[in-house]
Amino acid sequence: MTPVYEGAIQDLIDEFDELPGVGPKSAQRMAFHILAADAARVERFVEALRAVKARVRFCETCGNISESEQCAVCRDPRRDQRVICVVEEPKDLVAIERTREYRGLYHVLGGAIDPLSGVGPDDLRIRELFARVGGDVEEVILATNPTVVGEATAAYLTRMLRTMDVPVSRLASG
Amino acid sequence: MTPVYEGAIQDLIDEFDELPGVGPKSAQRMAFHILAADAARVERFVEALRAVKARVRFCETCGNISESEQCAVCRDPRRDQRVICVVEEPKDLVAIERTREYRGLYHVLGGAIDPLSGVGPDDLRIRELFARVGGDVEEVILATNPTVVGEATAAYLTRMLRTMDVPVSRLASG
Repeated sequence: MTPVYEGAIQDLIDEFDELPGVGPKSAQRMAFHILAADAARVERFVEALRAVKARVRFCETCGNISESEQCAVCRDPRRDQRVICVVEEPKDLVAIERTREYRGLYHVLGGAIDPLSGVGPDDLRIRELFARVGGDVEEVILATNPTVVGEATAAYLTRMLRTMDVPVSRLASG
Repeated sequence: MTPVYEGAIQDLIDEFDELPGVGPKSAQRMAFHILAADAARVERFVEALRAVKARVRFCETCGNISESEQCAVCRDPRRDQRVICVVEEPKDLVAIERTREYRGLYHVLGGAIDPLSGVGPDDLRIRELFARVGGDVEEVILATNPTVVGEATAAYLTRMLRTMDVPVSRLASG
Protein backbone atom coordinates (compact mmCIF):
# COMPACT_ATOMS: atom_id res chain seq x y z
CA MET A 1 0.00 0.00 0.00
CA THR A 2 1.27 3.46 -0.85
CA PRO A 3 1.42 5.51 2.36
CA VAL A 4 -1.51 7.86 1.86
CA TYR A 5 -1.35 10.54 4.50
CA GLU A 6 1.94 12.32 4.46
CA GLY A 7 3.68 14.54 6.99
CA ALA A 8 1.64 17.45 8.20
CA ILE A 9 -1.88 16.04 7.88
CA GLN A 10 -0.89 12.83 9.70
CA ASP A 11 0.80 14.88 12.43
CA LEU A 12 -2.39 16.88 12.93
CA ILE A 13 -4.52 13.72 13.00
CA ASP A 14 -2.18 12.39 15.72
CA GLU A 15 -2.55 15.60 17.74
CA PHE A 16 -6.36 15.52 17.59
CA ASP A 17 -6.27 11.82 18.39
CA GLU A 18 -4.56 12.62 21.72
CA LEU A 19 -7.47 14.79 22.89
CA PRO A 20 -9.84 13.17 25.40
CA GLY A 21 -12.77 11.36 23.77
CA VAL A 22 -11.38 11.61 20.23
CA GLY A 23 -10.80 8.42 18.24
CA PRO A 24 -8.86 8.00 14.99
CA LYS A 25 -11.93 8.54 12.79
CA SER A 26 -13.00 11.79 14.42
CA ALA A 27 -9.37 12.93 14.53
CA GLN A 28 -9.24 12.45 10.76
CA ARG A 29 -12.50 14.38 10.31
CA MET A 30 -11.14 17.24 12.44
CA ALA A 31 -7.87 17.40 10.50
CA PHE A 32 -9.75 17.61 7.19
CA HIS A 33 -11.95 20.30 8.69
CA ILE A 34 -8.82 22.34 9.48
CA LEU A 35 -7.43 21.68 6.00
CA ALA A 36 -10.63 23.11 4.49
CA ALA A 37 -10.91 26.01 6.96
CA ASP A 38 -9.67 29.43 5.95
CA ALA A 39 -6.33 30.64 7.28
CA ALA A 40 -7.90 33.22 9.61
CA ARG A 41 -9.92 30.53 11.38
CA VAL A 42 -6.79 28.42 11.89
CA GLU A 43 -4.87 31.43 13.26
CA ARG A 44 -7.76 32.10 15.68
CA PHE A 45 -7.49 28.47 16.86
CA VAL A 46 -3.71 28.80 17.26
CA GLU A 47 -4.12 32.04 19.24
CA ALA A 48 -6.74 30.45 21.49
CA LEU A 49 -4.43 27.52 22.27
CA ARG A 50 -1.51 29.79 23.05
CA ALA A 51 -3.56 32.24 25.07
CA VAL A 52 -4.77 29.46 27.37
CA LYS A 53 -1.21 28.40 28.11
CA ALA A 54 0.03 31.98 28.45
CA ARG A 55 -2.77 33.63 30.38
CA VAL A 56 -4.83 31.07 32.27
CA ARG A 57 -3.69 30.15 35.75
CA PHE A 58 -5.30 29.11 38.99
CA CYS A 59 -7.00 31.38 41.52
CA GLU A 60 -4.70 31.85 44.52
CA THR A 61 -7.64 31.56 46.89
CA CYS A 62 -9.82 28.75 45.61
CA GLY A 63 -7.88 27.01 42.81
CA ASN A 64 -10.47 27.78 40.14
CA ILE A 65 -9.11 28.73 36.72
CA SER A 66 -8.60 32.43 36.32
CA GLU A 67 -6.73 35.06 34.33
CA SER A 68 -5.93 37.08 37.44
CA GLU A 69 -4.78 36.30 40.99
CA GLN A 70 -8.37 35.89 42.13
CA CYS A 71 -11.00 34.14 40.03
CA ALA A 72 -14.30 35.74 39.04
CA VAL A 73 -16.18 34.02 41.87
CA CYS A 74 -13.72 35.06 44.58
CA ARG A 75 -13.69 38.62 43.23
CA ASP A 76 -17.49 38.91 43.27
CA PRO A 77 -18.52 40.84 46.44
CA ARG A 78 -22.10 39.57 46.15
CA ARG A 79 -21.02 36.01 46.94
CA ASP A 80 -21.62 34.71 50.45
CA GLN A 81 -18.13 34.60 52.02
CA ARG A 82 -19.25 32.35 54.87
CA VAL A 83 -19.91 29.21 52.81
CA ILE A 84 -17.32 27.16 50.90
CA CYS A 85 -18.29 24.43 48.49
CA VAL A 86 -15.48 21.91 47.89
CA VAL A 87 -15.19 20.38 44.41
CA GLU A 88 -12.62 18.21 42.68
CA GLU A 89 -12.08 20.13 39.43
CA PRO A 90 -12.93 23.53 37.89
CA LYS A 91 -15.50 21.83 35.66
CA ASP A 92 -17.40 20.64 38.73
CA LEU A 93 -17.53 24.26 39.91
CA VAL A 94 -18.94 25.24 36.52
CA ALA A 95 -21.61 22.55 36.75
CA ILE A 96 -22.76 23.92 40.11
CA GLU A 97 -22.68 27.52 38.84
CA ARG A 98 -24.95 26.49 35.98
CA THR A 99 -27.68 25.51 38.43
CA ARG A 100 -27.74 29.20 39.58
CA GLU A 101 -28.68 27.97 43.04
CA TYR A 102 -25.45 28.43 44.97
CA ARG A 103 -24.29 31.86 46.19
CA GLY A 104 -21.21 31.01 48.27
CA LEU A 105 -17.55 30.48 47.43
CA TYR A 106 -15.68 27.40 46.23
CA HIS A 107 -12.55 25.44 46.87
CA VAL A 108 -11.13 23.36 44.02
CA LEU A 109 -9.04 20.43 45.25
CA GLY A 110 -7.50 19.53 41.90
CA GLY A 111 -8.61 15.90 42.16
CA ALA A 112 -9.54 13.32 44.78
CA ILE A 113 -7.56 11.27 47.25
CA ASP A 114 -6.71 8.08 45.40
CA PRO A 115 -4.05 5.88 47.01
CA LEU A 116 -4.11 3.43 44.09
CA SER A 117 -2.99 6.23 41.77
CA GLY A 118 -0.58 7.59 44.36
CA VAL A 119 -2.64 10.74 45.08
CA GLY A 120 -2.55 11.59 48.78
CA PRO A 121 -3.94 14.60 50.72
CA ASP A 122 -0.69 16.50 50.19
CA ASP A 123 -1.08 16.30 46.43
CA LEU A 124 -4.36 18.23 46.56
CA ARG A 125 -5.19 21.76 47.73
CA ILE A 126 -6.34 20.48 51.12
CA ARG A 127 -3.94 22.47 53.32
CA GLU A 128 -5.19 25.62 51.54
CA LEU A 129 -8.75 24.61 52.38
CA PHE A 130 -7.97 24.22 56.08
CA ALA A 131 -6.28 27.64 56.06
CA ARG A 132 -9.42 29.28 54.66
CA VAL A 133 -11.69 27.51 57.13
CA GLY A 134 -9.91 29.17 60.02
CA GLY A 135 -11.58 32.52 59.25
CA ASP A 136 -15.24 33.59 58.94
CA VAL A 137 -16.39 30.38 57.31
CA GLU A 138 -19.61 29.06 58.83
CA GLU A 139 -20.21 26.07 56.60
CA VAL A 140 -18.33 23.72 54.27
CA ILE A 141 -20.29 21.82 51.66
CA LEU A 142 -18.50 18.80 50.23
CA ALA A 143 -19.37 18.35 46.55
CA THR A 144 -16.73 15.83 45.52
CA ASN A 145 -17.92 13.34 42.93
CA PRO A 146 -20.11 10.34 43.83
CA THR A 147 -17.29 7.94 42.98
CA VAL A 148 -15.26 5.72 45.31
CA VAL A 149 -12.42 8.23 45.45
CA GLY A 150 -14.78 11.20 45.71
CA GLU A 151 -16.61 9.61 48.65
CA ALA A 152 -13.33 8.68 50.34
CA THR A 153 -12.12 12.26 49.94
CA ALA A 154 -15.38 13.59 51.44
CA ALA A 155 -15.05 11.19 54.39
CA TYR A 156 -11.47 12.30 55.01
CA LEU A 157 -12.38 16.00 54.82
CA THR A 158 -15.39 15.51 57.11
CA ARG A 159 -13.19 13.90 59.77
CA MET A 160 -10.57 16.64 59.56
CA LEU A 161 -12.99 19.58 59.42
CA ARG A 162 -14.98 18.33 62.43
CA THR A 163 -11.82 18.58 64.53
CA MET A 164 -11.77 22.25 63.48
CA ASP A 165 -15.37 22.79 64.65
CA VAL A 166 -16.77 23.72 61.24
CA PRO A 167 -20.21 22.46 60.22
CA VAL A 168 -19.79 20.15 57.23
CA SER A 169 -22.46 18.90 54.86
CA ARG A 170 -22.30 16.57 51.86
CA LEU A 171 -23.97 17.73 48.66
CA ALA A 172 -26.54 15.16 47.55
CA SER A 173 -25.79 14.17 43.97
CA GLY A 174 -27.69 12.69 41.06
CA MET B 1 -24.52 33.93 38.42
CA THR B 2 -20.90 35.07 38.35
CA PRO B 3 -19.55 34.46 34.86
CA VAL B 4 -17.26 31.51 35.46
CA TYR B 5 -15.14 30.95 32.39
CA GLU B 6 -13.26 34.04 31.42
CA GLY B 7 -11.47 35.10 28.25
CA ALA B 8 -8.97 32.60 26.95
CA ILE B 9 -10.45 29.34 28.22
CA GLN B 10 -13.91 30.23 26.87
CA ASP B 11 -12.38 31.22 23.52
CA LEU B 12 -10.67 27.83 23.31
CA ILE B 13 -13.88 26.01 24.25
CA ASP B 14 -15.61 27.91 21.42
CA GLU B 15 -12.88 26.90 18.96
CA PHE B 16 -13.12 23.20 19.86
CA ASP B 17 -16.92 23.46 19.75
CA GLU B 18 -16.69 24.47 16.05
CA LEU B 19 -14.93 21.22 15.11
CA PRO B 20 -17.11 18.58 13.46
CA GLY B 21 -18.73 16.17 15.93
CA VAL B 22 -17.71 18.15 19.04
CA GLY B 23 -20.42 19.36 21.43
CA PRO B 24 -20.09 21.90 24.26
CA LYS B 25 -19.27 19.24 26.86
CA SER B 26 -16.47 17.61 24.90
CA ALA B 27 -15.19 21.05 23.89
CA GLN B 28 -14.90 21.91 27.58
CA ARG B 29 -13.08 18.63 28.30
CA MET B 30 -10.63 19.32 25.44
CA ALA B 31 -9.93 22.87 26.64
CA PHE B 32 -9.16 21.62 30.16
CA HIS B 33 -6.92 18.96 28.65
CA ILE B 34 -4.94 21.72 26.88
CA LEU B 35 -4.82 23.76 30.09
CA ALA B 36 -3.28 20.79 31.91
CA ALA B 37 -0.94 19.81 29.05
CA ASP B 38 2.67 20.92 29.13
CA ALA B 39 3.75 23.84 26.97
CA ALA B 40 5.73 21.66 24.56
CA ARG B 41 2.65 19.59 23.75
CA VAL B 42 0.64 22.73 23.03
CA GLU B 43 3.39 24.10 20.78
CA ARG B 44 3.43 20.79 18.90
CA PHE B 45 -0.33 21.12 18.38
CA VAL B 46 0.09 24.72 17.19
CA GLU B 47 2.83 23.70 14.76
CA ALA B 48 0.71 20.83 13.41
CA LEU B 49 -2.20 23.20 12.75
CA ARG B 50 0.00 25.74 11.00
CA ALA B 51 1.92 23.12 9.01
CA VAL B 52 -1.31 21.75 7.55
CA LYS B 53 -2.33 25.19 6.32
CA ALA B 54 1.16 26.03 5.07
CA ARG B 55 2.26 22.78 3.47
CA VAL B 56 -0.71 20.64 2.53
CA ARG B 57 -2.27 21.18 -0.86
CA PHE B 58 -4.03 19.09 -3.46
CA CYS B 59 -2.38 16.78 -5.98
CA GLU B 60 -2.45 18.43 -9.41
CA THR B 61 -3.32 15.13 -11.06
CA CYS B 62 -5.90 13.46 -8.86
CA GLY B 63 -6.96 16.03 -6.22
CA ASN B 64 -5.79 13.93 -3.28
CA ILE B 65 -4.10 15.81 -0.45
CA SER B 66 -0.37 16.10 -0.86
CA GLU B 67 2.67 18.07 0.18
CA SER B 68 4.06 18.10 -3.35
CA GLU B 69 2.63 18.66 -6.84
CA GLN B 70 1.84 14.96 -7.14
CA CYS B 71 0.45 12.91 -4.29
CA ALA B 72 2.06 9.73 -2.95
CA VAL B 73 -0.26 7.50 -4.99
CA CYS B 74 0.30 9.33 -8.29
CA ARG B 75 4.08 9.33 -7.67
CA ASP B 76 4.19 5.58 -7.02
CA PRO B 77 5.38 3.84 -10.23
CA ARG B 78 4.04 0.49 -9.00
CA ARG B 79 0.44 1.67 -9.28
CA ASP B 80 -1.54 0.53 -12.31
CA GLN B 81 -1.82 3.67 -14.47
CA ARG B 82 -4.64 2.23 -16.57
CA VAL B 83 -7.32 2.23 -13.87
CA ILE B 84 -8.83 5.27 -12.17
CA CYS B 85 -11.06 4.98 -9.13
CA VAL B 86 -13.29 8.04 -8.64
CA VAL B 87 -14.09 9.09 -5.07
CA GLU B 88 -15.75 12.11 -3.50
CA GLU B 89 -13.20 13.08 -0.85
CA PRO B 90 -9.61 12.26 0.18
CA LYS B 91 -10.94 10.31 3.16
CA ASP B 92 -12.78 7.96 0.78
CA LEU B 93 -9.49 7.33 -1.00
CA VAL B 94 -7.91 6.50 2.35
CA ALA B 95 -10.70 4.07 3.18
CA ILE B 96 -10.07 2.20 -0.09
CA GLU B 97 -6.30 2.23 0.43
CA ARG B 98 -6.83 0.63 3.84
CA THR B 99 -8.39 -2.41 2.18
CA ARG B 100 -5.01 -2.98 0.40
CA GLU B 101 -6.94 -4.44 -2.52
CA TYR B 102 -6.74 -1.68 -5.09
CA ARG B 103 -3.58 -1.06 -7.15
CA GLY B 104 -4.71 1.64 -9.60
CA LEU B 105 -4.89 5.43 -9.42
CA TYR B 106 -7.58 7.71 -8.03
CA HIS B 107 -9.50 10.81 -8.91
CA VAL B 108 -10.90 12.90 -6.05
CA LEU B 109 -13.93 14.95 -7.11
CA GLY B 110 -14.07 17.16 -4.02
CA GLY B 111 -17.72 16.31 -3.36
CA ALA B 112 -20.81 15.12 -5.22
CA ILE B 113 -23.24 16.78 -7.62
CA ASP B 114 -25.96 18.19 -5.38
CA PRO B 115 -28.32 20.68 -7.06
CA LEU B 116 -30.14 21.37 -3.78
CA SER B 117 -26.88 22.68 -2.29
CA GLY B 118 -25.95 24.46 -5.51
CA VAL B 119 -23.11 22.04 -6.39
CA GLY B 120 -23.02 21.38 -10.13
CA PRO B 121 -20.53 19.40 -12.26
CA ASP B 122 -18.41 22.53 -12.79
CA ASP B 123 -17.87 22.86 -9.03
CA LEU B 124 -16.14 19.47 -8.89
CA ARG B 125 -12.97 18.17 -10.49
CA ILE B 126 -14.95 16.50 -13.29
CA ARG B 127 -13.34 18.27 -16.23
CA GLU B 128 -9.97 17.14 -14.87
CA LEU B 129 -11.26 13.55 -14.79
CA PHE B 130 -12.36 13.67 -18.42
CA ALA B 131 -8.94 15.07 -19.40
CA ARG B 132 -7.19 12.12 -17.72
CA VAL B 133 -9.50 9.59 -19.31
CA GLY B 134 -8.39 10.67 -22.78
CA GLY B 135 -5.02 8.89 -22.32
CA ASP B 136 -4.09 5.29 -21.51
CA VAL B 137 -6.95 4.73 -19.09
CA GLU B 138 -8.65 1.41 -19.67
CA GLU B 139 -11.18 1.47 -16.86
CA VAL B 140 -12.91 3.92 -14.55
CA ILE B 141 -14.34 2.64 -11.28
CA LEU B 142 -16.93 4.89 -9.70
CA ALA B 143 -16.67 4.77 -5.91
CA THR B 144 -18.83 7.75 -4.98
CA ASN B 145 -20.79 7.25 -1.78
CA PRO B 146 -23.99 5.19 -1.65
CA THR B 147 -26.05 8.32 -0.94
CA VAL B 148 -28.62 10.05 -3.15
CA VAL B 149 -26.06 12.60 -4.33
CA GLY B 150 -23.31 10.01 -4.66
CA GLU B 151 -25.52 7.80 -6.82
CA ALA B 152 -26.64 10.76 -8.93
CA THR B 153 -23.00 11.72 -9.47
CA ALA B 154 -22.14 8.15 -10.48
CA ALA B 155 -25.07 8.13 -12.94
CA TYR B 156 -23.95 11.43 -14.46
CA LEU B 157 -20.33 10.27 -14.80
CA THR B 158 -21.41 6.93 -16.31
CA ARG B 159 -23.40 8.73 -18.99
CA MET B 160 -20.57 11.12 -19.85
CA LEU B 161 -17.78 8.53 -19.78
CA ARG B 162 -19.70 6.13 -22.03
CA THR B 163 -19.74 8.80 -24.75
CA MET B 164 -15.93 8.75 -24.40
CA ASP B 165 -15.79 4.97 -24.92
CA VAL B 166 -14.25 4.16 -21.53
CA PRO B 167 -15.43 1.09 -19.63
CA VAL B 168 -17.08 2.24 -16.42
CA SER B 169 -17.94 0.17 -13.39
CA ARG B 170 -19.60 1.08 -10.10
CA LEU B 171 -17.91 -0.07 -6.90
CA ALA B 172 -20.31 -2.18 -4.85
CA SER B 173 -20.54 -0.71 -1.37
CA GLY B 174 -21.52 -1.92 2.07
